Amino acid sequence: MNPAELLHALYLVAIVAEAMTAALAAGRRQMDWFGVALLGAITALGGGSVRDVLLGRYPLSWVENPHLLLITCGAALATIVIAHHMRHLRRVFLFLDAVGLVVFTIIGCNIAAGLGLPVVIVIASGMITGCVGGVLRDVLCADVPLLFRAELYATVSIVTGASYVGGQWLGLPHDSVMLGSMLIGLALRLLALRFGWSMPKFVYTESLH
Amino acid sequence: MNPAELLHALYLVAIVAEAMTAALAAGRRQMDWFGVALLGAITALGGGSVRDVLLGRYPLSWVENPHLLLITCGAALATIVIAHHMRHLRRVFLFLDAVGLVVFTIIGCNIAAGLGLPVVIVIASGMITGCVGGVLRDVLCADVPLLFRAELYATVSIVTGASYVGGQWLGLPHDSVMLGSMLIGLALRLLALRFGWSMPKFVYTESLH
Amino acid sequence: MNPAELLHALYLVAIVAEAMTAALAAGRRQMDWFGVALLGAITALGGGSVRDVLLGRYPLSWVENPHLLLITCGAALATIVIAHHMRHLRRVFLFLDAVGLVVFTIIGCNIAAGLGLPVVIVIASGMITGCVGGVLRDVLCADVPLLFRAELYATVSIVTGASYVGGQWLGLPHDSVMLGSMLIGLALRLLALRFGWSMPKFVYTESLH
Repeated sequence: MNPAELLHALYLVAIVAEAMTAALAAGRRQMDWFGVALLGAITALGGGSVRDVLLGRYPLSWVENPHLLLITCGAALATIVIAHHMRHLRRVFLFLDAVGLVVFTIIGCNIAAGLGLPVVIVIASGMITGCVGGVLRDVLCADVPLLFRAELYATVSIVTGASYVGGQWLGLPHDSVMLGSMLIGLALRLLALRFGWSMPKFVYTESLH
Repeated sequence: MNPAELLHALYLVAIVAEAMTAALAAGRRQMDWFGVALLGAITALGGGSVRDVLLGRYPLSWVENPHLLLITCGAALATIVIAHHMRHLRRVFLFLDAVGLVVFTIIGCNIAAGLGLPVVIVIASGMITGCVGGVLRDVLCADVPLLFRAELYATVSIVTGASYVGGQWLGLPHDSVMLGSMLIGLALRLLALRFGWSMPKFVYTESLH
Repeated sequence: MNPAELLHALYLVAIVAEAMTAALAAGRRQMDWFGVALLGAITALGGGSVRDVLLGRYPLSWVENPHLLLITCGAALATIVIAHHMRHLRRVFLFLDAVGLVVFTIIGCNIAAGLGLPVVIVIASGMITGCVGGVLRDVLCADVPLLFRAELYATVSIVTGASYVGGQWLGLPHDSVMLGSMLIGLALRLLALRFGWSMPKFVYTESLH
């Protein structure tokens, strides 16, 4: 299995994991089966779609490969059946969610770098790919997005993207840069989960208006 | 009146009906007149706009035909005047809303099929066209979208799209397929309203995090 | 400084002011530093991005000029440090926010007019550029957008755009039309703030469903 194949395999694992955690969020809101499937697909594929729309990169991945829609809807629906057993799989899911975050990020960085965009946009493209799916999930659940309040989630995406950009700048081989950045991001995310690291919060209680 | 003209006439009826029901949602949130007009236009035209942005299909319909903006804003504002009489028209509006759902769906299917996209995307395009306007309305009202919780609304859109795809696969004449799919979808929606049919819900009360 | 340079300078002032007021909204929601930076960038650059996506106009401004991302994130983060002093600057910020509204609006009108689009779309493009950033901010804070409920904010944008279109129709010089429309819009906004003008509200308490 070469690195491109590994990345694609990890991508499939990642969209399944994202669709399944989205399905649990849907269940907490008592959505119907259709809502579960749709929220799963939007969460898993939304980050890449928003990236492609912002970059004007058509066709979108799921328009070209409709099986991505079927896989994510299917994974979300399967979650309804196995939800009672997922409690025991909590750690597995947190791990897969972290894998998904860094895999999505690297795919987004790859695409922007391949278009010859500046490094700030390469990092932003990785972050949009990695994080926007969860933002859409939270907005559709009428929550303030967790991204804006949670432990190092977006920071992990930025660090992963910055490692990618830095590795390329140093002239390291592309495959090593991809794998190395993913490992750095994954380690940071797991350490943040383990030790409850979080960014400082900005608390402001006055009103301008 | 040939089928294409009928579809266009039904489309105009549908965007007016969607704008008017959105205006009532705005009134329940005590929005100002401007908010009413805007929510009406976004709800009526948002599904088609999101579809075209996702498919990279420019220009958007209301950019090419600005009178669509004027019609939907006007319909929403007119609702402010006649809202007190609309209670008696409840059934008429539920019927027009159902017509709008199937008309939007068929238009979305037509467009994707015309672009030669795969059947899964033809059905998804119909569903996005039919359902996203209402999702935008609910998000802008800070509600969990009704779509994810309500009676067969999205299911009707999928069944309509699947009938369209099935009819084309059987090689039936295009106009018959369009009209037949709309009648199937409309019948299902009216039966669901009459008998209170709904999709089963997924209720999940544990937290993964 | 010619009018184009003035408009660009005002644009930079406007995105900084929008990013800073968004940072305060983030602080009221107790977002972390990352959320503050992101909400600042989305609020300041979101209106122009949505306009360009709807018009199919690529690349987006911040993809082509990534320093816009850095400026807006930086302004939002700087707000964390100086927030305690901003109470005394309340009037300055309300003024800069009004400047931002009319500057964004005129830029949006300019772009649509330059594409040869119809006048309704020129006004709509101005309004989208001027107002959508704030809508995204409110949706990401899980609020009903202020735009739909607040004092003449969107109306100011429409009046500014209509003055621009009217001035062009009268054949007045382009620079005079731009500056004149901005002054008309700014005056209306400041008067609305001073005297608490607002649009009438539509209050509807019955349910259709």
